[in-house]
Amino acid sequence: MLRVNHQSFRTVLAESDVVRVAGAHHALSGYLAQEAGFQAVWSSSFEVSASRCLPDASILSMTEYLEAAANIQKALSIPVVADCDTGYGDNLNVAHMVHEFEGAGITAVCIEDKLFPKMNSFVGSGQALLDTAGFAAKIRTAKNAQHSSDFFVIARTEALISGLDVTQALERCRAYADSGADAVLVHSKQRTKDQVMAFLDGWDGRVPVVIVPTTYPDWHIDEVRAAGVSVVIYANQGLRASVSSLRDAYGAIVRDGDTTGIEESIASVGDLFELQRLAEWQKLGA
Amino acid sequence: MLRVNHQSFRTVLAESDVVRVAGAHHALSGYLAQEAGFQAVWSSSFEVSASRCLPDASILSMTEYLEAAANIQKALSIPVVADCDTGYGDNLNVAHMVHEFEGAGITAVCIEDKLFPKMNSFVGSGQALLDTAGFAAKIRTAKNAQHSSDFFVIARTEALISGLDVTQALERCRAYADSGADAVLVHSKQRTKDQVMAFLDGWDGRVPVVIVPTTYPDWHIDEVRAAGVSVVIYANQGLRASVSSLRDAYGAIVRDGDTTGIEESIASVGDLFELQRLAEWQKLGA
Amino acid sequence: MLRVNHQSFRTVLAESDVVRVAGAHHALSGYLAQEAGFQAVWSSSFEVSASRCLPDASILSMTEYLEAAANIQKALSIPVVADCDTGYGDNLNVAHMVHEFEGAGITAVCIEDKLFPKMNSFVGSGQALLDTAGFAAKIRTAKNAQHSSDFFVIARTEALISGLDVTQALERCRAYADSGADAVLVHSKQRTKDQVMAFLDGWDGRVPVVIVPTTYPDWHIDEVRAAGVSVVIYANQGLRASVSSLRDAYGAIVRDGDTTGIEESIASVGDLFELQRLAEWQKLGA
Amino acid sequence: MLRVNHQSFRTVLAESDVVRVAGAHHALSGYLAQEAGFQAVWSSSFEVSASRCLPDASILSMTEYLEAAANIQKALSIPVVADCDTGYGDNLNVAHMVHEFEGAGITAVCIEDKLFPKMNSFVGSGQALLDTAGFAAKIRTAKNAQHSSDFFVIARTEALISGLDVTQALERCRAYADSGADAVLVHSKQRTKDQVMAFLDGWDGRVPVVIVPTTYPDWHIDEVRAAGVSVVIYANQGLRASVSSLRDAYGAIVRDGDTTGIEESIASVGDLFELQRLAEWQKLGA
Repeated sequence: MLRVNHQSFRTVLAESDVVRVAGAHHALSGYLAQEAGFQAVWSSSFEVSASRCLPDASILSMTEYLEAAANIQKALSIPVVADCDTGYGDNLNVAHMVHEFEGAGITAVCIEDKLFPKMNSFVGSGQALLDTAGFAAKIRTAKNAQHSSDFFVIARTEALISGLDVTQALERCRAYADSGADAVLVHSKQRTKDQVMAFLDGWDGRVPVVIVPTTYPDWHIDEVRAAGVSVVIYANQGLRASVSSLRDAYGAIVRDGDTTGIEESIASVGDLFELQRLAEWQKLGA
Repeated sequence: MLRVNHQSFRTVLAESDVVRVAGAHHALSGYLAQEAGFQAVWSSSFEVSASRCLPDASILSMTEYLEAAANIQKALSIPVVADCDTGYGDNLNVAHMVHEFEGAGITAVCIEDKLFPKMNSFVGSGQALLDTAGFAAKIRTAKNAQHSSDFFVIARTEALISGLDVTQALERCRAYADSGADAVLVHSKQRTKDQVMAFLDGWDGRVPVVIVPTTYPDWHIDEVRAAGVSVVIYANQGLRASVSSLRDAYGAIVRDGDTTGIEESIASVGDLFELQRLAEWQKLGA
Repeated sequence: MLRVNHQSFRTVLAESDVVRVAGAHHALSGYLAQEAGFQAVWSSSFEVSASRCLPDASILSMTEYLEAAANIQKALSIPVVADCDTGYGDNLNVAHMVHEFEGAGITAVCIEDKLFPKMNSFVGSGQALLDTAGFAAKIRTAKNAQHSSDFFVIARTEALISGLDVTQALERCRAYADSGADAVLVHSKQRTKDQVMAFLDGWDGRVPVVIVPTTYPDWHIDEVRAAGVSVVIYANQGLRASVSSLRDAYGAIVRDGDTTGIEESIASVGDLFELQRLAEWQKLGA
Repeated sequence: MLRVNHQSFRTVLAESDVVRVAGAHHALSGYLAQEAGFQAVWSSSFEVSASRCLPDASILSMTEYLEAAANIQKALSIPVVADCDTGYGDNLNVAHMVHEFEGAGITAVCIEDKLFPKMNSFVGSGQALLDTAGFAAKIRTAKNAQHSSDFFVIARTEALISGLDVTQALERCRAYADSGADAVLVHSKQRTKDQVMAFLDGWDGRVPVVIVPTTYPDWHIDEVRAAGVSVVIYANQGLRASVSSLRDAYGAIVRDGDTTGIEESIASVGDLFELQRLAEWQKLGA
């Protein structure tokens, strides 16, 4: 079977105590995440923009992020969660975004309460936020725009990123949940999980909580689950591993003068044929 | 400087005794190839289709291969050599292809003498070829369609791949050169370089020769140069290294339950910021 | 409501005695066809390629025809029937085509038994056909590739276009129907309906028949229905009307030196706002 | 010759006393404008969004507007002036925009001093503007981002549209010119030319002036020229004429039951073949 049918993110979430999600930037990386056992894939704006050698700063357009997310989803049986930044503008853009992503087979999107154009969360400090009512309106707009009741909208607060405190992050997330968000994502760039733990302590569980432990990498999944987190996004480790391996491989070829030295450590052409599901496709030509 | 100006492939070739070219599937991999010292980048159909989890069998369209090649070129100062398969159809498609690739800033393309739709050269045996006169007409069409005299067309023969002998490969390549090809690529899937060496022995040097040593990985660049080869394409090792590293990284995260174990071996977020040339972009916002 | 839900072509066909379909090349022309009372829209390869000033000769890629069809469908509540030429290559391309068009919300496609790359049916004579078994295999491939049982595949024979006779056209269409085609389209470029009538006389009705009366424009819909035709595609009159009006309007502006003379005969800016459903969108911004 | 080389807008402007520019939404409409005698084509955001049945409100992305502009330019020997709205965001987006549009062969762009996301100028009142210094920075960013000295940036002020007076419009345009703008566009939605005339009276001519006489259609080109205007954009009459003709043609087919009645008034299939330059393309296949 060449065609891949995928579960919705809502279904996956319902069937799991904690959903592990891996960042990806193309179908192949998403497929390898699925193969490794992840239950969903994050079509990361950071990864997609970096794969174009461009900053994660709303420089690429919705069209390009949508294409990336849709192309990943086509190859997977697990759902893509689309990183949709700020929703690409105002309410009208959010409505259009939902029409387009849902129409392309995406079952979950995430939008954040920064202003358009955004800058990556790990850059600098004091990034400006949209006021709570404004972002709540975006969430309502998104929910009204969806066609299937299955479609899932994650509201991401950058409150902690932008220097607000946990009380303010909680306040925002409660408002977003009450505006229809199906989950909230609380992002932190602290070097420990403490800030996120404080958030979880104050959260009343009205909707599930999503985290992105990029800067606090040592929080074990068992503890994450125990702390009440429902979804963990390992947002960019895949691309970062690719960069290292590409540097190693390209460097070795230039330095060694041939590829003998790396043949053992890299996937074979036959491995790639399997990932392309070549044998199944070839049957069509018979 | 955010904008990148790139040399033409013709210029690079003129300034080198042997040009080393690395396969890439997105701008970031192309950029890392440039960083490693390669002098050009091959926008590989195999890599681009594999990154979509699809076979290298003319399933993706010219539009998608063009977009991949153009996006790579935008980020590089070295030239992209676009892998254009069969030229995506007949003479009309070849003319359109040249208009589009040249219009997008690509300075070199490669077309091959298989029939459309093609299948990857390492799959099966006895792939059918277009007759010599038919492919020579494609080459003439491509050369007539180019706008700048700088544009470079590589004629690739799949004669050896499809079971023809070296004499036939030479005959084809002479005809292609006489039809205007700027270089010829002789592809082989033998496990040694012998077949290609035999070709080189019989080649009169009327245009430069390009090789792709995927199946004979131990041919050292110094010997390649000495044998009279002008361009070597390491066509797919980058993607194959990525696959291994993605399998390792994703596997470790699922198995370990956190990312602590891989942090040391993968590029940092800051490394990625540099590859995105974030600091230069940020100056624009000041 | 900004989002538009559309009926499937199968549903529309089931509810009609004869379905009238209009050619379109962008969402706006499709929308105006819907407004006029057509029950479906033909995303015409001829119109789409002409709107790019390119021949209808497989020069644009599947990607571009898909984008055109999908963008039309997004704006309509009636279904799009996608003109998919030859299926863009061989069986593998046909399978990929079905995955992509169905994934984009298209509920009906039409493929024809010419060879890839095709040339428009009204150009020259003696165009080569794929043999019957080969095209029947394409139909089977398409039907096996579809996900929903609702998806509808029209098999178009160019037998009469390429100089074969009615008996041969019938033979081909019977084979296509028996291979799973949901309808057959018999194309003719004769100046009268006689050839198509002869086909209908010989047709046993195992699947519905589709016609495209470009060269026999005087066949009234009541007679078409009475003759047993199920679907009539008015394939390109819309674009042809646009060309005339654009020539008139642009010519008048240049000649007159201002636009006063044409203001009365062209749609107003306010008319366009309605077609853009501006008022509904503006409510989102409130 | 299938390939079309085009003049730059700067060259056309240098050779004309007044440049007449027609709005277009696809290559074919642009080609018909060229055929009628226009010296440049405006890839109108209003037309492009309307052709998708979407409001002119920054809903489509830069990617889509770029694709439309580039596809028009490919078919023309006269230059496209790309309507780039607000520059699609902030300074970073403006720089990226210039890279992309110039890279795609566009020689002139126009950006306006409204906030992103914008709303069409003829909708409502009191639209918010970016402050003068902020927009001047965008102009400087655009000029610094261009690669060729030939590239042309038009600064469009929406001062009069948003309720500011002529003095303020002049003040803004002087600042934009001093920041590097190659021309200024002063937009007005008054029913007469008086407001624009007042602007011209106060303008010191440091750079050329562009106007868009949509709401004051009776200003004759001879008077426009005499008043010191350098460029006149007839921005949307083409699409408006298309809408009327499509309504007429589709309506007639449904009403009449056949197409006999419209055949005389619409372009022939042969006319379309000429616009597709079919004969020239066919020579390639010989």
